[in-house]
Amino acid sequence: VNDRSRGSRPGGRAAAVVAAVHKATLELLNERGFDALEIPEIAERSGVNKTSIYRRWSTKGELVLDVALSLTQVDVPIPNHGSLRDDLRSLLHSIADMLTTPFADGLLRAFICARDDSEVLVAQRSSFWNERFRISGALVERAIARGELPAGTNSNQLLELASSPLFFRHLVTKDPVGDEDIERLVRLAINAFTV
Amino acid sequence: VNDRSRGSRPGGRAAAVVAAVHKATLELLNERGFDALEIPEIAERSGVNKTSIYRRWSTKGELVLDVALSLTQVDVPIPNHGSLRDDLRSLLHSIADMLTTPFADGLLRAFICARDDSEVLVAQRSSFWNERFRISGALVERAIARGELPAGTNSNQLLELASSPLFFRHLVTKDPVGDEDIERLVRLAINAFTV
Repeated sequence: VNDRSRGSRPGGRAAAVVAAVHKATLELLNERGFDALEIPEIAERSGVNKTSIYRRWSTKGELVLDVALSLTQVDVPIPNHGSLRDDLRSLLHSIADMLTTPFADGLLRAFICARDDSEVLVAQRSSFWNERFRISGALVERAIARGELPAGTNSNQLLELASSPLFFRHLVTKDPVGDEDIERLVRLAINAFTV
Repeated sequence: VNDRSRGSRPGGRAAAVVAAVHKATLELLNERGFDALEIPEIAERSGVNKTSIYRRWSTKGELVLDVALSLTQVDVPIPNHGSLRDDLRSLLHSIADMLTTPFADGLLRAFICARDDSEVLVAQRSSFWNERFRISGALVERAIARGELPAGTNSNQLLELASSPLFFRHLVTKDPVGDEDIERLVRLAINAFTV
């Protein structure tokens, strides 16, 4: 199936192609992870011509990062339980849960293992993380407003300290993360920034 | 060159083969990183038959992890400046510097991007990190002995909190790590464990 044959409005057609390819990529990423993901299969699943896919995204790394980036533009619910401890605990649990999904694991591999660290990829990665930190930062800003953290606390630094061990274990040591680990990270991160 | 033709004592020959393959792997890893590393090239460089290499290490991931593991059995100098702040600063600088080398980056990719997460690989990875944490733990034990940290402080937990953001930036966000970032991580980790 050639995507040129579908749709009538050029803008609508391009958007439909992007949506179909993104959807197929997400599904396949979820089903089999990044390593086994192949552009010909994405073409088949999406009904979009392989050549059209390569014209827009030169590698699967670029395509997966584009999917990731589009997902961050969706509203992400940020915990708002009225206390920093509860909000941070929820956030860390979400991150830990997310990391166990083939989808997020696939995204991370796309980020880390891409053989083509092109400018496009670097820019996409940077946008992705800036956006994630900006969105989650609301949790820290609310804690400052409630007087739970000193004014001027840097939310990126706090979120990085609290969440990095989750990524470290997931990617590097592969040690499991339990509830007690999350409880400890919440306590340590709050201690670190309130001394 | 077939390794069967070299050496006279079986034990000595096997050890010589392992040493030659390890050395070639390290050199090639340093020269071109994990992605571009290929077993046929390691065979050529080491003068060990490709078939002999595959007989012992079924994938390049396994081989590289075996090299990594053998390196951790070498004595690693642990900073001992007489203060936790200075020791932790030195350790984090060493980690940050190490992560920028093609060799360490290659090792990490071998850990993370290996397509074959075999039992062997999982066991090697676990040994590698247990050993790294055990060795670096001396720094925390000395701080406890000097009364800089509470008795019973868990050294793995402290080292994990302090160093994870370095790995997070190197692998995930690719944000650079400056002296001021290391200074902050030292301060935050100490705060976190001394409240």
